[in-house]
Amino acid sequence: MVRVTRRFEFCAAHRLYCREFSDDENRRTFGACSNPNWHGHNYVLDVIVGGEPDPGTGLVIEGAVFERAVKERAIDPFDHRNLNLECDDFKGLNPSVENIARVIWRRLDGALGTAKLHCVRVWETSKTSAEYTGP
Amino acid sequence: MVRVTRRFEFCAAHRLYCREFSDDENRRTFGACSNPNWHGHNYVLDVIVGGEPDPGTGLVIEGAVFERAVKERAIDPFDHRNLNLECDDFKGLNPSVENIARVIWRRLDGALGTAKLHCVRVWETSKTSAEYTGP
Amino acid sequence: MVRVTRRFEFCAAHRLYCREFSDDENRRTFGACSNPNWHGHNYVLDVIVGGEPDPGTGLVIEGAVFERAVKERAIDPFDHRNLNLECDDFKGLNPSVENIARVIWRRLDGALGTAKLHCVRVWETSKTSAEYTGP
Amino acid sequence: MVRVTRRFEFCAAHRLYCREFSDDENRRTFGACSNPNWHGHNYVLDVIVGGEPDPGTGLVIEGAVFERAVKERAIDPFDHRNLNLECDDFKGLNPSVENIARVIWRRLDGALGTAKLHCVRVWETSKTSAEYTGP
Amino acid sequence: MVRVTRRFEFCAAHRLYCREFSDDENRRTFGACSNPNWHGHNYVLDVIVGGEPDPGTGLVIEGAVFERAVKERAIDPFDHRNLNLECDDFKGLNPSVENIARVIWRRLDGALGTAKLHCVRVWETSKTSAEYTGP
Amino acid sequence: MVRVTRRFEFCAAHRLYCREFSDDENRRTFGACSNPNWHGHNYVLDVIVGGEPDPGTGLVIEGAVFERAVKERAIDPFDHRNLNLECDDFKGLNPSVENIARVIWRRLDGALGTAKLHCVRVWETSKTSAEYTGP
Repeated sequence: MVRVTRRFEFCAAHRLYCREFSDDENRRTFGACSNPNWHGHNYVLDVIVGGEPDPGTGLVIEGAVFERAVKERAIDPFDHRNLNLECDDFKGLNPSVENIARVIWRRLDGALGTAKLHCVRVWETSKTSAEYTGP
Repeated sequence: MVRVTRRFEFCAAHRLYCREFSDDENRRTFGACSNPNWHGHNYVLDVIVGGEPDPGTGLVIEGAVFERAVKERAIDPFDHRNLNLECDDFKGLNPSVENIARVIWRRLDGALGTAKLHCVRVWETSKTSAEYTGP
Repeated sequence: MVRVTRRFEFCAAHRLYCREFSDDENRRTFGACSNPNWHGHNYVLDVIVGGEPDPGTGLVIEGAVFERAVKERAIDPFDHRNLNLECDDFKGLNPSVENIARVIWRRLDGALGTAKLHCVRVWETSKTSAEYTGP
Repeated sequence: MVRVTRRFEFCAAHRLYCREFSDDENRRTFGACSNPNWHGHNYVLDVIVGGEPDPGTGLVIEGAVFERAVKERAIDPFDHRNLNLECDDFKGLNPSVENIARVIWRRLDGALGTAKLHCVRVWETSKTSAEYTGP
Repeated sequence: MVRVTRRFEFCAAHRLYCREFSDDENRRTFGACSNPNWHGHNYVLDVIVGGEPDPGTGLVIEGAVFERAVKERAIDPFDHRNLNLECDDFKGLNPSVENIARVIWRRLDGALGTAKLHCVRVWETSKTSAEYTGP
Repeated sequence: MVRVTRRFEFCAAHRLYCREFSDDENRRTFGACSNPNWHGHNYVLDVIVGGEPDPGTGLVIEGAVFERAVKERAIDPFDHRNLNLECDDFKGLNPSVENIARVIWRRLDGALGTAKLHCVRVWETSKTSAEYTGP
């Protein structure tokens, strides 16, 4: 089996907070990330799939197919959006980088032809990322 | 003369739009960046100063002095903020990366001891930056 | 004046050699880069323009305009091409990174609306680049 | 067990296509990568080995040994080459990034002293890579 | 389970050598790294933890908690230090990048709240790293 | 005129301090960088030269000539060294990144054939650099 990684980017605004928390608890837990006026990030998304390369083409997945599937399902819905306000995936779900990785997993799992989704990794900044390898 | 560059980062939400433009004109000019619900970026800030290194210390500017000045004047006011809503510098000024560079120049010019501000460069994404070298 | 940089990428095959040189001279001058069977690079292109930001929009140049001009004039003609065989710009001109920068300058100069082309920088590898700021 | 990664680079020309495919099928499957006049890349190679650090030296593998083995077996044969025309490994094998990773695995497996080859990762561009962890 | 990575940096001097080796053997094994007058690196440290995101906060570990634990236990003790002379962890232990990864593992294991330490990765240069995933 | 940049790396130990300063003044001025037991960095060196590309070869300077000159004059003397103890250039001169840039300028100026040295830029960390463009 060979694994293929493809990197994507999207920009979005978000806010971390729990409805059940007081303002103080939110500030204590999420720091400046709980700012009610939002802040944002350049998210970097690595999608990693695995499979047996086709004996003829040598490919695990055609580049254009990979590109289009991720663009349609995981970039366009979030790019230049407010994750809390505009994205149903985060209705009642805090858009932490951990949850973003899990949401994108659900959006991509089973949608990449014969290639099997192996890992979704999301970088929130150049210093912090979360990765999910499935349930 | 020697130039010294120091790199900083901040995250912020913003929106590009002109009050005088119709929604359509805003969308045509700024694309998805005009989304009224905001989006955001990890901004990277390069501050470049010039000066004659002190004959004794060999420094153009002490690291801690440089760090503190930029942090107080150009990072803390913007980090994890909504540039349009929370930052007076952008009252009536579109927070384009060009204007962010000019705003930060004004905030830092003359505030770096004997070192002379040479250039403020702001990266909005890994592919786009603006730099300003003064009026 | 503010300068705006936008980064692009293209992949291409090329070969460095002088028709007037013997094989030996070519090998001595260009090393493995003179391999008659070609080699290739992921070129990174930084296009830097300057101008006064529009008082209303705060932009030196609209992102979509910048993007399209460079894509049409400097990426599409070279991307996934053999620079020596398929690109007329390099008919009789060695596709050194220096010459690639000058060729792209000529292709972009005057084609970026009111923004003035300031510099074309081309990275051939992560360690080597050439930049041209005009005649 | 500790894993040690070492990064290498090589430049090469290649072309993706299947002899059994029509020109049209090749173009549909491989896009611009099937250009008969070749294109090329700066490949980045990560070789990852595992082992118990020697109790005295603290090393899994001596740096110079690691370096020389990979250089001789996986860099020199491909660097500044045309993978399709000049490299026997790709006789009848499409030089996709998946296949390049598998070819380099076969070249390095068992050739790194007491360190065990764990993974070969090849980046074709800054956005696409393949990794192989053995049969 | 979701994994979260956080990146840190520290600068340090060190020297690789074995007391039991002759100067010649040290030079043969460690090359210039055995220089008795020391050399140094900008080390990059990736700490990777795993856990079930809290259903309310969506976090595997609070950012500030993660940051403080690693800073206190793995950055402050080594940053701007001489690993051989000043750090007890390397008394009688060669400060190879392999051993640095294992030492940091021991310092962090069990100290990250409910998050489970998954991997410690240390980059000695941009080309060489070691990672340890526990005994 | 075209400018060509080539990037190099070296690792070294150093210490910042002034003989005329008390321990306290040194600590106040240089912080942890004044540690008497040394610390170190992975220095990144960008050497930028300018010239008219040769009409035949298209080169400002042959790659191998550029490489060898910098390696002999600016990498080998410092790589895996203690700048304060082992490098005469820093006898009585604080090895600040500003002074390292000036020292390397003096070592390279006039030694790059017909290419004219334009700038020496030295990165001490990924966040701090100094550049010198001559007296």
